[in-house]
Amino acid sequence: MKLPFIKPVYAHCDLPCGVYDPAQARIEAQSVYEIMKKYDGLDEMNKLRAVIIKEQRADLVKQHLWVLWTDYFKPEHLDKHPNLHELFWQATKQAGACKKTTDQAEGQKLLDQIDEIATIFAATKKA
Amino acid sequence: MKLPFIKPVYAHCDLPCGVYDPAQARIEAQSVYEIMKKYDGLDEMNKLRAVIIKEQRADLVKQHLWVLWTDYFKPEHLDKHPNLHELFWQATKQAGACKKTTDQAEGQKLLDQIDEIATIFAATKKA
Amino acid sequence: MKLPFIKPVYAHCDLPCGVYDPAQARIEAQSVYEIMKKYDGLDEMNKLRAVIIKEQRADLVKQHLWVLWTDYFKPEHLDKHPNLHELFWQATKQAGACKKTTDQAEGQKLLDQIDEIATIFAATKKA
Amino acid sequence: MKLPFIKPVYAHCDLPCGVYDPAQARIEAQSVYEIMKKYDGLDEMNKLRAVIIKEQRADLVKQHLWVLWTDYFKPEHLDKHPNLHELFWQATKQAGACKKTTDQAEGQKLLDQIDEIATIFAATKKA
Amino acid sequence: MKLPFIKPVYAHCDLPCGVYDPAQARIEAQSVYEIMKKYDGLDEMNKLRAVIIKEQRADLVKQHLWVLWTDYFKPEHLDKHPNLHELFWQATKQAGACKKTTDQAEGQKLLDQIDEIATIFAATKKA
Amino acid sequence: MKLPFIKPVYAHCDLPCGVYDPAQARIEAQSVYEIMKKYDGLDEMNKLRAVIIKEQRADLVKQHLWVLWTDYFKPEHLDKHPNLHELFWQATKQAGACKKTTDQAEGQKLLDQIDEIATIFAATKKA
Repeated sequence: MKLPFIKPVYAHCDLPCGVYDPAQARIEAQSVYEIMKKYDGLDEMNKLRAVIIKEQRADLVKQHLWVLWTDYFKPEHLDKHPNLHELFWQATKQAGACKKTTDQAEGQKLLDQIDEIATIFAATKKA
Repeated sequence: MKLPFIKPVYAHCDLPCGVYDPAQARIEAQSVYEIMKKYDGLDEMNKLRAVIIKEQRADLVKQHLWVLWTDYFKPEHLDKHPNLHELFWQATKQAGACKKTTDQAEGQKLLDQIDEIATIFAATKKA
Repeated sequence: MKLPFIKPVYAHCDLPCGVYDPAQARIEAQSVYEIMKKYDGLDEMNKLRAVIIKEQRADLVKQHLWVLWTDYFKPEHLDKHPNLHELFWQATKQAGACKKTTDQAEGQKLLDQIDEIATIFAATKKA
Repeated sequence: MKLPFIKPVYAHCDLPCGVYDPAQARIEAQSVYEIMKKYDGLDEMNKLRAVIIKEQRADLVKQHLWVLWTDYFKPEHLDKHPNLHELFWQATKQAGACKKTTDQAEGQKLLDQIDEIATIFAATKKA
Repeated sequence: MKLPFIKPVYAHCDLPCGVYDPAQARIEAQSVYEIMKKYDGLDEMNKLRAVIIKEQRADLVKQHLWVLWTDYFKPEHLDKHPNLHELFWQATKQAGACKKTTDQAEGQKLLDQIDEIATIFAATKKA
Repeated sequence: MKLPFIKPVYAHCDLPCGVYDPAQARIEAQSVYEIMKKYDGLDEMNKLRAVIIKEQRADLVKQHLWVLWTDYFKPEHLDKHPNLHELFWQATKQAGACKKTTDQAEGQKLLDQIDEIATIFAATKKA
């Protein structure tokens, strides 16, 4: 069966649980972005709920990025991509920044940073 | 920037947090499968860890599938895909079954069930 | 010692953790209902807290119902109670709906749906 | 609709989330007990899973008891039931003790302690 | 290497996980206090976030105190410090009270209660 | 009241929840170390429990370190301590490594890395 939208998940093999995919962080960041987009149109109670949910989703973005950074990436990846630490630091900081605002530009910046990480991730998979 | 493996995440728009993607369940199920595959080659302590992690990952599969079933799918989807309830019931039961075994065939069955759900999900997105 | 209000918990025996009881979902749904009832009388900060706690309690309702649906109920139960899937789908959707409102009628509807599930649960226990 | 096994949940009204019920701790303790009972009959992997699940269930017993002790009970209850602190201390310690053993007598002792707490709880409800 | 601010962590040895330290509750209570202090200066969205985070931090205070009370303290400690139960009950109740207010005096009271517990903890370590 | 072992918690003030302390990671790492030390003396069931608890404690170490890295440290700290990223990467990787072994030397290495981070943290506090 061909699935056009679930691409093969990349397996990383030296650990019992060796499956990593930047899509996990990306999906949560997309959720943060969508909440920002809908925020102004919500009534009082749902504005409140939006803040609660955005807080949780941004935390999940951080969580997924941290796991990727610590568990997936290896010294040889860092040699080839020396800005790796900085990228993850900025992206997780940006996830925190998204908690404090409903400015979609901040949400887009987070998505772009995750895409940048995903590009490096893809490059390490091809290598 | 083109990302070959992170496809656009599908947004579902009548809720504050409207992003759904079967990939979330799929990634965790892939993790369950990989743990099964490595199990026999592990030493005592890591066999133990594998069971712990498989337990958690299978729970996450259930969690992501339940959210998809309850929160994403609507009565009009059910009209077109009347086996939807049964599919989710069987897939979440299968995630539970994967906790009790390291038989890869059981893990593969779970992956296939999620792919079947993902195909329906994709069809509802095109509609 | 006789306890008038803690009835025997029903044990379901083919799993290591075989105890199920719809009371778990019911207690959390009752909490959702009580929060709705007190909402208007609360000050600003506690209104906010009420929304946070209602969000969590409604999530617990969903969680307990999902576990009951997937883990307790078996095909033979479904044969006798063919509306089982629909009941759980509607009840978990209703738990989600209760997050967006403080209308007690919505909370009561959730309680009624759980009672309906509990009646079926009781019937399967007697069988 | 009459439900023979879900008794009315007792509402406690001076808080936004004012629903308490010792049944929550009791259900988890029953689960601990059932796991102990099945333990010897399980295969290697499921023995392992039993320990993992017993650990979690015993934690939930502690959690539900702690919440009841701190959040539900008031100084006037303590005046009438001066052994309340000791009872909760012993019961939560016993939940911890149940993690280290599969001796059903230890599980039964935990159930009895919870029943004793539940009797006091019921008495405070009638008052 | 001398660390002026991380004092040796006190190990308690009859359990697999035998490390206890009142600092865990203290740090979370300090966080509750700081949130109260900043509350009035925050904008609307961050006021909301402050309430959410205060709710979580106060829960962590309760959690750490409960673990300390049930898991660390032994009957011989209670003999020497007969107000132990009452202290923990009041401190965990106070953590709950801090959820409902931004009055720093309430946060300070919680910090003082934890310090009182910590003094007893230190005394049991010297004994 | 003087507390010899709970040192003032360092407050970091530009966020609603601005309290950070490397002691949080240190306490969990000490727990990992103590579990390793006791492991050989435990019976079968408690060996199992030790692995479960070590897994959780090591995760908490990672969690506390990640929060410190992303949320507390600022670009000006990085300027003065250019090995900061590498230190956190190695320490969180080491927390992961401690899950796979009961070798106390690995636990000690983790403690040393956290102490090194704590020294930098202290230096930024004095500045």
